[in-house]
Amino acid sequence: MHSVVPAMRLADLAQTFNLQIAGDADIEIIGVCSLLPGKPRHLSFCADARLRSAIGQTQAGALVLAPRDAKTFGGNALIAADPAVAFARIAKQFDDRANFIAGWHSSASIADDAKIGADCWIGAGAVIESNAVIGANSFIGPNCVIGRDAVIGEGSRLEANVWIASRCRLGARAQVQPGAVIGSRGFGLARAKSGWIEVPQLGAVIVGDDVEIGANTTIDRGALDDTVIENGVKLDNQIQIAHNCRIGADTAIAACVGIAGSTRIGARCLIGGAAGIGGHLEIGDDIVILGLAMVTKSLSAPGVYGSGLPVMPAREWRKLVGRVRRLPRTAQRMQAIEQALKIKPSQGDSEVEQDDF
Amino acid sequence: MHSVVPAMRLADLAQTFNLQIAGDADIEIIGVCSLLPGKPRHLSFCADARLRSAIGQTQAGALVLAPRDAKTFGGNALIAADPAVAFARIAKQFDDRANFIAGWHSSASIADDAKIGADCWIGAGAVIESNAVIGANSFIGPNCVIGRDAVIGEGSRLEANVWIASRCRLGARAQVQPGAVIGSRGFGLARAKSGWIEVPQLGAVIVGDDVEIGANTTIDRGALDDTVIENGVKLDNQIQIAHNCRIGADTAIAACVGIAGSTRIGARCLIGGAAGIGGHLEIGDDIVILGLAMVTKSLSAPGVYGSGLPVMPAREWRKLVGRVRRLPRTAQRMQAIEQALKIKPSQGDSEVEQDDF
Amino acid sequence: MHSVVPAMRLADLAQTFNLQIAGDADIEIIGVCSLLPGKPRHLSFCADARLRSAIGQTQAGALVLAPRDAKTFGGNALIAADPAVAFARIAKQFDDRANFIAGWHSSASIADDAKIGADCWIGAGAVIESNAVIGANSFIGPNCVIGRDAVIGEGSRLEANVWIASRCRLGARAQVQPGAVIGSRGFGLARAKSGWIEVPQLGAVIVGDDVEIGANTTIDRGALDDTVIENGVKLDNQIQIAHNCRIGADTAIAACVGIAGSTRIGARCLIGGAAGIGGHLEIGDDIVILGLAMVTKSLSAPGVYGSGLPVMPAREWRKLVGRVRRLPRTAQRMQAIEQALKIKPSQGDSEVEQDDF
Repeated sequence: MHSVVPAMRLADLAQTFNLQIAGDADIEIIGVCSLLPGKPRHLSFCADARLRSAIGQTQAGALVLAPRDAKTFGGNALIAADPAVAFARIAKQFDDRANFIAGWHSSASIADDAKIGADCWIGAGAVIESNAVIGANSFIGPNCVIGRDAVIGEGSRLEANVWIASRCRLGARAQVQPGAVIGSRGFGLARAKSGWIEVPQLGAVIVGDDVEIGANTTIDRGALDDTVIENGVKLDNQIQIAHNCRIGADTAIAACVGIAGSTRIGARCLIGGAAGIGGHLEIGDDIVILGLAMVTKSLSAPGVYGSGLPVMPAREWRKLVGRVRRLPRTAQRMQAIEQALKIKPSQGDSEVEQDDF
Repeated sequence: MHSVVPAMRLADLAQTFNLQIAGDADIEIIGVCSLLPGKPRHLSFCADARLRSAIGQTQAGALVLAPRDAKTFGGNALIAADPAVAFARIAKQFDDRANFIAGWHSSASIADDAKIGADCWIGAGAVIESNAVIGANSFIGPNCVIGRDAVIGEGSRLEANVWIASRCRLGARAQVQPGAVIGSRGFGLARAKSGWIEVPQLGAVIVGDDVEIGANTTIDRGALDDTVIENGVKLDNQIQIAHNCRIGADTAIAACVGIAGSTRIGARCLIGGAAGIGGHLEIGDDIVILGLAMVTKSLSAPGVYGSGLPVMPAREWRKLVGRVRRLPRTAQRMQAIEQALKIKPSQGDSEVEQDDF
Repeated sequence: MHSVVPAMRLADLAQTFNLQIAGDADIEIIGVCSLLPGKPRHLSFCADARLRSAIGQTQAGALVLAPRDAKTFGGNALIAADPAVAFARIAKQFDDRANFIAGWHSSASIADDAKIGADCWIGAGAVIESNAVIGANSFIGPNCVIGRDAVIGEGSRLEANVWIASRCRLGARAQVQPGAVIGSRGFGLARAKSGWIEVPQLGAVIVGDDVEIGANTTIDRGALDDTVIENGVKLDNQIQIAHNCRIGADTAIAACVGIAGSTRIGARCLIGGAAGIGGHLEIGDDIVILGLAMVTKSLSAPGVYGSGLPVMPAREWRKLVGRVRRLPRTAQRMQAIEQALKIKPSQGDSEVEQDDF
């Protein structure tokens, strides 16, 4: 099912990735490693000025370096304008997970009318339902379930235990980690006198090309229209995306973020871990939301946003919460003082009862 | 495994759901759609006064409308006192997921002494362990695991990859999304000198009728007694309910909520997404907790509760955190001013060191 | 697959666990129960002074009690210095889940070169990939997937639907709840002009002995080095641990905690539910972090830490947020007052614009 990664000469890597060489072009590289301690015959990199002092101490066989670092480094190096990007591209050559031998495991359940492209692997216990389409060169890992009429684009990798609902579509080169659930029922309920009435969720989830979906992440299908994940979106683990959301192209979302229903997020946003984003909001393009932020209103201006009270010793925190809760009383005391002194506060301060959320 | 949904005449829908008709009673409806743009031969609805202006622009074949909207609308309509509820009921007719043909997939592992009711579907790779009971007309999706002595009520749907632990019970018409885990070990530990001692979790999870459980939601089994989910509870995705909790009837909980052990939540509560609820608390009936709230104490009075600092530009947020942390110093300064002015603050302000959590 | 738990005489339990007896040594115990109401022929315990008054009302056949409680209790008892720990050890005898009959289910897919130790159970639909090693006396539940070259220590229990990535290692006596994902791809991305470049994640996850991993918890594999979970760590449900983290021995983490990449947490820490811990931080030994805390900086001094604004009525909360946001204006007003009174605030107050995160 997997093949072995061969060793590569530094000169071959330089040619393949169009990089300059310093040092011994013939050294053989058999893998990648951390800068420190580094391993002989392995390639590492330095892209962070704060780590520059470690370059001289590495035991790595070669480094990917920026031009200015390569000058002072006496060892073997590949020289790249952006060492992090160049290293990422090279390291992929040493990721043997990406290699597999095509075939269908005998315990997979594949519907007769499912369309499986050329050179796919269908793992043990995988279930491909009626009329589903799997693009060529895709890896469908063990115990994945692909619903009827679902479409998986070519070159995709669904690691294991992934569930793709009926009629949902993933674009080319999708990368889906174990336990991800794509197309679960949106949480649509109407309150009748007799209790909750289930609102059928008849839309789908439409995912663009080059999308990564993390482990145990859940994306609900739309109620009537679709939930949409645009091209190049990167989703970490345990993210929840509710029905009818739209995530713009190349937006990256860190783990444990929750996004409530019908919210639209723009392109190229960065959303920090465990941020919570309310429903029916519009988040513009190029917005950065810091981890654990509480987003209760739409944001349109590009920039960095955050919220929350960072950790402190618990005793101090408990007292501080008391102080915060007393702010209305503090305001009264301040007013009494101003009256005693005949200081007139500016206009805006009388509006303190109002807020914008 | 699934059958096709037939077209229905507007007159038939009116009769089935006991609604008045306006317009052409013979138009055939083949599905449901959004109000805008709407699709010919599909049914939509308007239940929100803010969308009223869109009624005239829809291309939907017919609408479910409140009486006052039906009057001004010239097109085909079904007239309902509560259009959202009526539409939800009708839309269910067009949800072909609910239809399945009974049978047991050849790759399912079903214990000889398991009791499978009439007209069930047992999917590929599903595992039904010893002495488990599956009620009639239930759908057990691919790769679900039903533990020994577990009971699933009739008319239930376990979508796929669902795990029901031994001795746990789901009532009738349970709807469980993929990846849900019901009856995992509660996080019970005792600290001995030698390290953590595992406290066995010997209770079960008992789930009432008409309960929905979202994707990748986890509910732990009780330590000695049971964890209980009452009738009509609706749980969204990625919720965590710890051991020995009780969730009251018809309470709805949005995604990513965590509830710590032994907490009891009343009936008809609404809990917003990603709220965190501490252990050993009592939350009364008819309580609304807003998203991301931090619940560290019991709540008894019905009403709406919330907490948290909403998002703002990060630069502003960082400064504001500094100001909040300086509140003890602010209080000292205010006291100094009051002393200088010989203003006496009211009694309560000296208790600022105390708090109620 | 499972065997039945036999009844045990109180005298036998006393001998096995080296405890003193009060009352009838011959009473047969067939299970464990809660203190109230308690069940005849079952064993319960009291370890909490607040429950002491309930001891007299229990219907339990016998209790595990501290010496001072045993004196006043007239019934059957086992006397232990730490009743909670003693009860946990005894209760394990009555946990029939721990017992299983060895065997390999016919529907399991086991690679020819996988090494399965003696007396293991390999469940229905489980997949053991090439060269994986399963230690003796381990239980690999239904639909678990163990990647190639992975190692599971002896006496481990992987409940069901657990995914262990290639090359990851679990120590002895691992206990893993359903849906856990160990070794998913870390969220490593580099931003190139053309969009995101995937940074291959070539490390593994290395888990020590006696580790518990909760349902739907996810632990990412390291980028170049490994993610490490040390001996005796206890992880609850739906925890996310990002790539290259290290969790110190005997640390216990409650549900829904998220830990960003490369953070190191010390030994014997307690981390409350839904706390969020940023990346590249150092949390020392013996640190307690309360639930929902926002950890944005390293913590070294042992102690208890917390943060967040606890819940309040929503109307009050909205006003309070307004007051907090007005703190910069409050500071200006206070300054104006001090100037009017010619009071000089202490040095530190001019630094209010700075903060330490």
